[in-house]
Amino acid sequence: MNVQFKNAKILKTRDDHGFEIVDGELWVKGNEIFYIGDGKDAEHTDCQDPIVWENPIDCEGNLLIPGFKNAHTHTPMTFLRSYADDMPLQDWLTKQVFPKEAQLTKEDVYWLDILGVMEYLTSGITSNFDMYLFPVENAKAFRDCGFRSVQTSGINNFSYSVKEVEEHYLAINEMGELNSFILGFHAEYTTSKEIMQGIGELAHKYKSPVFLHNAETKREVAECKERWGMTPTALTDALDLYRFGGGGYHMVHMEEADFEIMKKRNLFAVTNPCSNLKLASGIAPIKRYLDENIPLAIGTDGPASNNALDFFREMYLMTALAKVREEDASCVPAEEVLYAATAGGAHAMNLTDCDRLAVGKKADLVMIDLNQPNMQPENNLVKNLVYSGSKSNVKLTMVNGQILYKDHQFRIGFDPKEIYDRANAIISRMN
Amino acid sequence: MNVQFKNAKILKTRDDHGFEIVDGELWVKGNEIFYIGDGKDAEHTDCQDPIVWENPIDCEGNLLIPGFKNAHTHTPMTFLRSYADDMPLQDWLTKQVFPKEAQLTKEDVYWLDILGVMEYLTSGITSNFDMYLFPVENAKAFRDCGFRSVQTSGINNFSYSVKEVEEHYLAINEMGELNSFILGFHAEYTTSKEIMQGIGELAHKYKSPVFLHNAETKREVAECKERWGMTPTALTDALDLYRFGGGGYHMVHMEEADFEIMKKRNLFAVTNPCSNLKLASGIAPIKRYLDENIPLAIGTDGPASNNALDFFREMYLMTALAKVREEDASCVPAEEVLYAATAGGAHAMNLTDCDRLAVGKKADLVMIDLNQPNMQPENNLVKNLVYSGSKSNVKLTMVNGQILYKDHQFRIGFDPKEIYDRANAIISRMN
Repeated sequence: MNVQFKNAKILKTRDDHGFEIVDGELWVKGNEIFYIGDGKDAEHTDCQDPIVWENPIDCEGNLLIPGFKNAHTHTPMTFLRSYADDMPLQDWLTKQVFPKEAQLTKEDVYWLDILGVMEYLTSGITSNFDMYLFPVENAKAFRDCGFRSVQTSGINNFSYSVKEVEEHYLAINEMGELNSFILGFHAEYTTSKEIMQGIGELAHKYKSPVFLHNAETKREVAECKERWGMTPTALTDALDLYRFGGGGYHMVHMEEADFEIMKKRNLFAVTNPCSNLKLASGIAPIKRYLDENIPLAIGTDGPASNNALDFFREMYLMTALAKVREEDASCVPAEEVLYAATAGGAHAMNLTDCDRLAVGKKADLVMIDLNQPNMQPENNLVKNLVYSGSKSNVKLTMVNGQILYKDHQFRIGFDPKEIYDRANAIISRMN
Repeated sequence: MNVQFKNAKILKTRDDHGFEIVDGELWVKGNEIFYIGDGKDAEHTDCQDPIVWENPIDCEGNLLIPGFKNAHTHTPMTFLRSYADDMPLQDWLTKQVFPKEAQLTKEDVYWLDILGVMEYLTSGITSNFDMYLFPVENAKAFRDCGFRSVQTSGINNFSYSVKEVEEHYLAINEMGELNSFILGFHAEYTTSKEIMQGIGELAHKYKSPVFLHNAETKREVAECKERWGMTPTALTDALDLYRFGGGGYHMVHMEEADFEIMKKRNLFAVTNPCSNLKLASGIAPIKRYLDENIPLAIGTDGPASNNALDFFREMYLMTALAKVREEDASCVPAEEVLYAATAGGAHAMNLTDCDRLAVGKKADLVMIDLNQPNMQPENNLVKNLVYSGSKSNVKLTMVNGQILYKDHQFRIGFDPKEIYDRANAIISRMN
């Protein structure tokens, strides 16, 4: 499909993490951005193929932005939304989450993923970095919706072997342009040294980054230090897991030496502010990461611990929580948040072709409705997005050149009502 | 207008702060709820007037809830949205907010209020408790939209006299069923003892509660103690301001004795979680308020310090911030949040007829679209509302029996485009 967006405001990302907004047109040819400009200089007679353009989309002055990259999630946990809230973390995990997850089938995971994709699209999220059981089924569900997805492994002492992870790595990286796989494991506190070393060997063999849950809770870090005499960051670095980079999800409770390792290895901190609040884990040191030039990305975490998949809420909290943590209303400016939500996430997920709106980049983009009261007046559109933006402003979400969501309607090939019924049936069926 | 909502789920509020959901019909006659039930027992032949029913509204199984009560805001500050973010609080106030506010006219305030009302309606907010300059113009703007509004005074050493506050009190309480006025003043740190005493005399004369900004920042409390040897709560109680109740906005930095005063005087704590984060003020002790049975309400604060007027974000943060503050994922359950957002706010604002969905109560209500992915599965609709709800779920907002917002369209008698243009013109005009 070839699409011409006309009469748009277009958000352009600068390398210094700033943004510029230009008025004009953005044309999508196939799955790529083909042209950005005022439309007058666009002859393009040099093309080999004659281009067939669809009816142009009049953006009515609305804003095109790069899609949000949800850099940490467990999508199929949609079935546990509002199932077990307002409980202590250990009870939540051991009495509610684990016993229900044990009853999930591959087919369940597929349908629960579709529900998650729908929610992502309503929030302007165009790709996810997903860790869950049945990674191949996950990858297929996302692909079947036309959604871009990166899987990582949640291998631990109770699920999967290193050999199976290698199979997932190879299978998913072969699946096609919408799917990829980056190595990882669940977390230090659930995973033996042997498994971590096995993942390290795969990382060296395939030159892959490695990601894991890291420093989510104080207790996790304290117990790791008791076991190994060092933090999870130091331990995983000592095991030589980061030769090709990677990073951690959550990254709340860091020690001084951890920042040095992150800088040395160019590790990403993927922050999950809503989940860290709801599970009472803490507030991540975002200002420090920025001060150290440690790259940042944002994730929703799974819908059982959030409970939404709403990037506007995450963006707001990334900066607002930093402000109250540091007692400094000036820290973590909106521009850094929007950069992390778009380019930062893309870089963490090795989706460098999806990081910004520019010619030759993949057409993963969102139209933001500015003609709503929360976007007015237009004093500063980037700050409006981060501080007052809402899912209600998402007018269109395009992934890989395909419009998957427009004017509150999904175009993913599934009937929403059927997906809701399936999700309700899955949780109702369980003991 | 008489409206029959059919095929609805109806949220009923219990006195113990819990909720029940019943399937059925809710009928609105004039500005009141006339009937809730399954529709079969509703003959109503005993009515004097024959009732003319509009075409019924098929709710398609969606959820009717009482409207949210925004119990602290400065609505006309919409013009400063995203104007001065990511700055230290003192610079924000003295270099940006005050110089711009000094240039506002009565007419400006009127139009900026309309923009605020539009945003309230998109978020399911059906009334506000507003403190700002030109309270009579404020009251008129809200009334002209059909919106229910309670004004309070922001009198301080620089604006208004006690005599003028009395005039506002009398004028606005005479304006009609949508408007009322409750006594108040800006804050201890901006207001002389003489003015506070003057407000106290009015409170005694008119048997009115008194509200003020209280304990928003550590510095405010410390400086009050330097000046008066006691906290703002203790000082205002010593001045006998709370003989007829009242409460404080923000209420973040409390001392032990303050809780006792609040219980003795039945004072409301109106919490403003987003603003307290963004201005780096702190996290309020919500769990303690609940433990002490101190009544709670929620406010957005003004759009310059938030920057949205989004009750879903406030509700989420009321509980999520408490969880991280107390390091306890079980504290401040969703039910208490929804109670504060609806009944709690109504009681704080002396809108006891608007606190819940019940026969004889005012028809201030919201239809929540459950047929969206963030509301599925339906494991627990109250928790869905608080933990994953969004403005995008607001399908209809009714105030005083009138539908003011439905399917993304406003019915307030103003053209949205004109309101946006006026708001942009106001800020553009200023030095």
